[in-house]
Amino acid sequence: MTDYFAGIPKIAYEGPDGDNDFAFRHYDPDETILGKRLEDHLRFSVAYWHSFASDGGDPFGGQTFLRPWFGPTMDHAKMKANAAFEMFRILGQPYFCFHDADIRPEGDTFAENTNRLKEMTDYLQGKMEATGTKLLWGTANLFSHRRYMAGAATNPDPDVFAFAAATVKTCLDATQQLGGENYVLWGGREGYETLLNTDLKRERQQAGRFLTMVVDYAKKIGFDGTILIEPKPQEPTKHQYDYDVATVYGFLKDFGLEGEVKVNIEQGHAILAGHSFEHELALAASLGILGSIDMNRNDYQSGWDTDQFPNNVPEVMLAYYEVLKAGGFTTGGTNFDAKLRRQSLDPQDLILAHVGGMDVCAAGLKAAARMLEDGMLEEARQARYAAWEAGDAPALLAQGTLETIADCVLRDNINPQPHSGRQEALENLVNRYL
Amino acid sequence: MTDYFAGIPKIAYEGPDGDNDFAFRHYDPDETILGKRLEDHLRFSVAYWHSFASDGGDPFGGQTFLRPWFGPTMDHAKMKANAAFEMFRILGQPYFCFHDADIRPEGDTFAENTNRLKEMTDYLQGKMEATGTKLLWGTANLFSHRRYMAGAATNPDPDVFAFAAATVKTCLDATQQLGGENYVLWGGREGYETLLNTDLKRERQQAGRFLTMVVDYAKKIGFDGTILIEPKPQEPTKHQYDYDVATVYGFLKDFGLEGEVKVNIEQGHAILAGHSFEHELALAASLGILGSIDMNRNDYQSGWDTDQFPNNVPEVMLAYYEVLKAGGFTTGGTNFDAKLRRQSLDPQDLILAHVGGMDVCAAGLKAAARMLEDGMLEEARQARYAAWEAGDAPALLAQGTLETIADCVLRDNINPQPHSGRQEALENLVNRYL
Amino acid sequence: MTDYFAGIPKIAYEGPDGDNDFAFRHYDPDETILGKRLEDHLRFSVAYWHSFASDGGDPFGGQTFLRPWFGPTMDHAKMKANAAFEMFRILGQPYFCFHDADIRPEGDTFAENTNRLKEMTDYLQGKMEATGTKLLWGTANLFSHRRYMAGAATNPDPDVFAFAAATVKTCLDATQQLGGENYVLWGGREGYETLLNTDLKRERQQAGRFLTMVVDYAKKIGFDGTILIEPKPQEPTKHQYDYDVATVYGFLKDFGLEGEVKVNIEQGHAILAGHSFEHELALAASLGILGSIDMNRNDYQSGWDTDQFPNNVPEVMLAYYEVLKAGGFTTGGTNFDAKLRRQSLDPQDLILAHVGGMDVCAAGLKAAARMLEDGMLEEARQARYAAWEAGDAPALLAQGTLETIADCVLRDNINPQPHSGRQEALENLVNRYL
Amino acid sequence: MTDYFAGIPKIAYEGPDGDNDFAFRHYDPDETILGKRLEDHLRFSVAYWHSFASDGGDPFGGQTFLRPWFGPTMDHAKMKANAAFEMFRILGQPYFCFHDADIRPEGDTFAENTNRLKEMTDYLQGKMEATGTKLLWGTANLFSHRRYMAGAATNPDPDVFAFAAATVKTCLDATQQLGGENYVLWGGREGYETLLNTDLKRERQQAGRFLTMVVDYAKKIGFDGTILIEPKPQEPTKHQYDYDVATVYGFLKDFGLEGEVKVNIEQGHAILAGHSFEHELALAASLGILGSIDMNRNDYQSGWDTDQFPNNVPEVMLAYYEVLKAGGFTTGGTNFDAKLRRQSLDPQDLILAHVGGMDVCAAGLKAAARMLEDGMLEEARQARYAAWEAGDAPALLAQGTLETIADCVLRDNINPQPHSGRQEALENLVNRYL
Repeated sequence: MTDYFAGIPKIAYEGPDGDNDFAFRHYDPDETILGKRLEDHLRFSVAYWHSFASDGGDPFGGQTFLRPWFGPTMDHAKMKANAAFEMFRILGQPYFCFHDADIRPEGDTFAENTNRLKEMTDYLQGKMEATGTKLLWGTANLFSHRRYMAGAATNPDPDVFAFAAATVKTCLDATQQLGGENYVLWGGREGYETLLNTDLKRERQQAGRFLTMVVDYAKKIGFDGTILIEPKPQEPTKHQYDYDVATVYGFLKDFGLEGEVKVNIEQGHAILAGHSFEHELALAASLGILGSIDMNRNDYQSGWDTDQFPNNVPEVMLAYYEVLKAGGFTTGGTNFDAKLRRQSLDPQDLILAHVGGMDVCAAGLKAAARMLEDGMLEEARQARYAAWEAGDAPALLAQGTLETIADCVLRDNINPQPHSGRQEALENLVNRYL
Repeated sequence: MTDYFAGIPKIAYEGPDGDNDFAFRHYDPDETILGKRLEDHLRFSVAYWHSFASDGGDPFGGQTFLRPWFGPTMDHAKMKANAAFEMFRILGQPYFCFHDADIRPEGDTFAENTNRLKEMTDYLQGKMEATGTKLLWGTANLFSHRRYMAGAATNPDPDVFAFAAATVKTCLDATQQLGGENYVLWGGREGYETLLNTDLKRERQQAGRFLTMVVDYAKKIGFDGTILIEPKPQEPTKHQYDYDVATVYGFLKDFGLEGEVKVNIEQGHAILAGHSFEHELALAASLGILGSIDMNRNDYQSGWDTDQFPNNVPEVMLAYYEVLKAGGFTTGGTNFDAKLRRQSLDPQDLILAHVGGMDVCAAGLKAAARMLEDGMLEEARQARYAAWEAGDAPALLAQGTLETIADCVLRDNINPQPHSGRQEALENLVNRYL
Repeated sequence: MTDYFAGIPKIAYEGPDGDNDFAFRHYDPDETILGKRLEDHLRFSVAYWHSFASDGGDPFGGQTFLRPWFGPTMDHAKMKANAAFEMFRILGQPYFCFHDADIRPEGDTFAENTNRLKEMTDYLQGKMEATGTKLLWGTANLFSHRRYMAGAATNPDPDVFAFAAATVKTCLDATQQLGGENYVLWGGREGYETLLNTDLKRERQQAGRFLTMVVDYAKKIGFDGTILIEPKPQEPTKHQYDYDVATVYGFLKDFGLEGEVKVNIEQGHAILAGHSFEHELALAASLGILGSIDMNRNDYQSGWDTDQFPNNVPEVMLAYYEVLKAGGFTTGGTNFDAKLRRQSLDPQDLILAHVGGMDVCAAGLKAAARMLEDGMLEEARQARYAAWEAGDAPALLAQGTLETIADCVLRDNINPQPHSGRQEALENLVNRYL
Repeated sequence: MTDYFAGIPKIAYEGPDGDNDFAFRHYDPDETILGKRLEDHLRFSVAYWHSFASDGGDPFGGQTFLRPWFGPTMDHAKMKANAAFEMFRILGQPYFCFHDADIRPEGDTFAENTNRLKEMTDYLQGKMEATGTKLLWGTANLFSHRRYMAGAATNPDPDVFAFAAATVKTCLDATQQLGGENYVLWGGREGYETLLNTDLKRERQQAGRFLTMVVDYAKKIGFDGTILIEPKPQEPTKHQYDYDVATVYGFLKDFGLEGEVKVNIEQGHAILAGHSFEHELALAASLGILGSIDMNRNDYQSGWDTDQFPNNVPEVMLAYYEVLKAGGFTTGGTNFDAKLRRQSLDPQDLILAHVGGMDVCAAGLKAAARMLEDGMLEEARQARYAAWEAGDAPALLAQGTLETIADCVLRDNINPQPHSGRQEALENLVNRYL
């Protein structure tokens, strides 16, 4: 065991009025919301990478965090796992997520990577069985190592494509072994630094084939979780192919995978793509591909991914409203792909960041549930479109042609008057539930 | 006739070394480039709206331009048409484009709009026959009138949908009568101001049906031009549905229209969506939907559409390189959807803006043609992917599975080493052709 | 009298749990916060321009609002004033603000403008005396008319400078007559569209002289309010000289006006300049130039000024925290330079927008007051710097030289270890007060 | 000696028509431009850091570059210096720049850092004497080490302030020993991650004192170069105090240092602050604080500092136009604070990047010189302001008051008409010189 978090108590719900930093004020896992336990709504997951692998570095400076488990050996990897599960115990969240590179040291060969991954998968399995913590999703890190600098699936070198494919196989195997409920692909290097050296058409074909192979293999091994793509517009690349939800949808349609693959949407990535988080969620829901979420915000004024813990309840409320309206998570959940600030050095920073983030999410989801239950917002929305349900409107939409419609407009001298969109009133309404 | 441009000579090509403001320095329509006249490559078009309808206003101030043809009557509309064709004669570009609202005053009813449009269409037809100026595309303005404030095809009111559909019919008829080579849809209000009052799924269905009706009617009347969607991410709305090329592609796939509709790509809109112009062009070409371009740049540091005339040859070169590589324009062309700055009051400003823009485009296209002809850039690009053409790579891509590939990686101990992407060298190479 | 707002009741405080749209849920003017009435903290002001002059137009479409007072005559202006004061009565806010161009129709000459302004000033004075509504600030619109297209104080034409100066005189006179507590200058056209035609040095000198004349005249007429500059980085211009608080400070220092002029900070302008609102407020406070605020937010993802009503309490809280920490407003206040969305057509939209905005501000200020009163945030901040108050640190800062300090570092082998910045813990703390 | 660049020839000028990658096409150091050698205009400098210390890492992946000199020993540092001077010989640029941390390995104590810096300073001095390469500027890296994570001069811990001050002393000593012509301060961590834990006023005072000590010590040791601040708005911090030129100017005025300190302006930082590069240059020139430039561009669509080599001649031309108009560099020069892309692994990438960058700068400066010599742009600019030199205008500006001016406007019925700003014509004119 590690004693990295020595002295930090298990976090319990103490209600909104307490003044204990190490307590939940809004997150009571057992509270019933819309007929379901709050824990089962939120399905919180802690990310291995930012929490246990991040060293506090940024492009202008090196490591600031001093974690005893930083090091190249399997013993370090196990010490890291011990610390991680100690934190999971303290927080009590039901899930975690990992990349292969988070849980095992990089080896010199594919074989060594595979063996180390297997050893650590077994080790984690033991800890999961002992603690009850589950795996929300696994994934392969196909972007950090220098071999992937020009992409993994979309690399100009078929050997890299092969290495990546083989690696994903091992990660799918590990995810399956650990009962993971989803498998995620984030294509951090699937894009380009300069269009000058890039063949967009060819790289898109490679990406399509790669994803098809992933879907096929998942089926073959009986993986009954969900395959998820995580969109991001750019960074580290100048352009990333999985730009946003709409782009991913077009890609899935092109390869006939829109029924096989869903999206894992991150607030920070939505922001970078010029969208609100709730837009991406609502769009994915409307297209039938809403899978899971990464709950880490961006600073709106920093043009890179800041991956901060959520702290604005009104924003989080709008996001969960879309999730709840879509029926809530099935295999998905709320993963904290959020990282401590470079200056947040201490063990308690790691705990408090999650405590605050979980509380903000809980408060947001509860407000969203009140709004959904109350029904006034949906009522207003439906009323706005009510004319489409009446009279000739359904037929006009279903069977009209420009000619028949033009005849009708002319005959009836249709001259529509606009109606107020009531934006401010609806914004006031939303604020009522907070 | 108007004498608005009195004293301004017809613009002729005088070569790069002259000092006459009213001459082309790079645009010689008859110069042969890659076996084709430069005019036939560029297919320049002047936009009626910004050139003849814009009054210099912006959100913080009213009209600065004093055009004698500003006014509500049909006589004003004809005076405007006279001035437009006088400018076309001076510039000598082969095409123009218009919205219905540019060429006829708004009437009180659909019938009045239709009659006025017909009268002006006949009037323009006469001028086109007299001058040889052709129509690149027509379009309907479905965003300026207050009836469209909440969208046209995606409006919550079916009467607005109907009014818009009827209007598009009249504009397609006019475009067909004038021999227009394309028909464009820009959905300036097809989007939302607030997600709170919006049903994304329903509005998407409406948009799909609307576009289908447009395609059907175009076929019915024997329109043999191209239907084009012009993507834009936002402004005036918070979110516009035709966000970018990738988004439009997904939408077309969804409604089975990817073989029927192409895109009209604007540099400024690409920029607002977070893409380079050449990216959008290359992507559209790779998806088979590259149609036409609007050659108006944005200021990179202004977050709204500045619609300025192009003035940076290296940028324009990269755009035309994608066009040429894709085989050049067929029905499409280079439209100046560019507007004078608020302070550019004088008739000569309007002429000089186009002269400069046309010259920048000509210089850019000629540099692009040199680069394409030389072949070194394409050679470098192909060399980067050469390994995909050799050995087992094609089979791996076509038939591999995660398992067979993993076996192979393990067996052969594949351990790929990265190769330089040579970005700086390629950037140097590109600069050689300028 | 107008009956534009017929049927809308005077807004009263009904507490957070009511469901009446036309009631305050958080704003009880008489509630005592930190020993002062809430009304006297917030000092709400309604802006004449967006509320009564805006027609709903945007760059892509014309008027959507149909106000009976839109028109060119003095009777229209008085009808507008009647409607404005009717709305002030309904809302009960203590202040309003105006530009000359908001309250009188534009005349053909300076003399006519002056006469009309005087007549309307007298008319407003009557209404103010009758109702008790006060003037927070007056200002001159030196950006909408075409004469100002290239700037007012910074215009290349001295006649425009003169016209602007004369106009400001009349507006200062009007502000003084109406007991205005501040006078504001927003330089919407004081900047440039292109550096190519601009002499930065000369225009800065003109701006400095202009401001000096304003300060001198204000003193001469015994105006005891505050002169305020409102920073904005761009839009409508490519670059605006009063970019942000730091830029204005350098300008004031240059002309010796840092003791004479303060800033009016707008959330939306702060955002456009790349700053958070609270940053601009904190910076102005630290420089001694915090004057007043415009409480209209921007959409973070729209690159133009959206001027929306505030609706995010956590954000507003941070802003008021800086105001309260600086001692609260003196002559300044909370002006709503916020405008209805284009689709918000109805009289009740105008009322509800202000009701919601006022409530959000009230909730934010009350949370800020709790945080200030509690003192934990300030305590944490001071603790972070505590070492600067101890031992040799004050002397080191006051009298050290690089040499003496280097000697000391060498002698004592100073090797500082970093301490956690506790960002997440502080963000959690802030959320407690909401 | 290193043979890292083995096989790469010394770069010579071969004129614009050659096809040798390893030759200058525009940069002939001995060409006479405006009466001065081109080398003496441009004063090129190569940065030690990005060229020799960068490992190709980014926030999403580690090292890609394999340089033989990467390592922790003084021998590595000397091998790095050998490689650097080998590259300087190949490129033939007259200057280089460095941070202390670039040239010596980090030690365990201040004393060790100082000794290592001294040893390497002596080593570099030997190489400089042998080769004739000179030092444009030196600087201290006060941002990468974890001790500086919360700032150097503005740190909440006085020990960090002291360590930083002592370090700057050693770097000023080294710069002086090597005949450096400037000394630069870039405050990468002088700012904040969150305003919640920050005392803006106190940190500003610390920064002012620190800079004053630097100026005093430079004088004391007889350093006759220029002290330069390099502005940047953000990244790595949320907010950096030296935001832009205007902000630095206000800060210098506040501490009475505007005559002692100038600015080193970087294109990429200008872009991040929302300004064009030429704006920042023109502003600094107009305020008398233009010192030197860092010639590394940003991608306009990436919200972080991409530090790419310049490649757009029209942009670079506008920058050098401002430099030439201000009289050219005195102690300043053109430093390449530009770094290779992560995928540019090879020795020739490093050379070609600089060759291309130098050529782009040379072409830009020569075009700028043609434009300045021709005088048409300046003539147009002066003509725009001509009315300010005529009649009563100078007196109006110097002695007018709002009252006297208002009297005059009324008496003469001044009613100014706007004149075209001719932006498009001027943009056309600029393009002539390319």
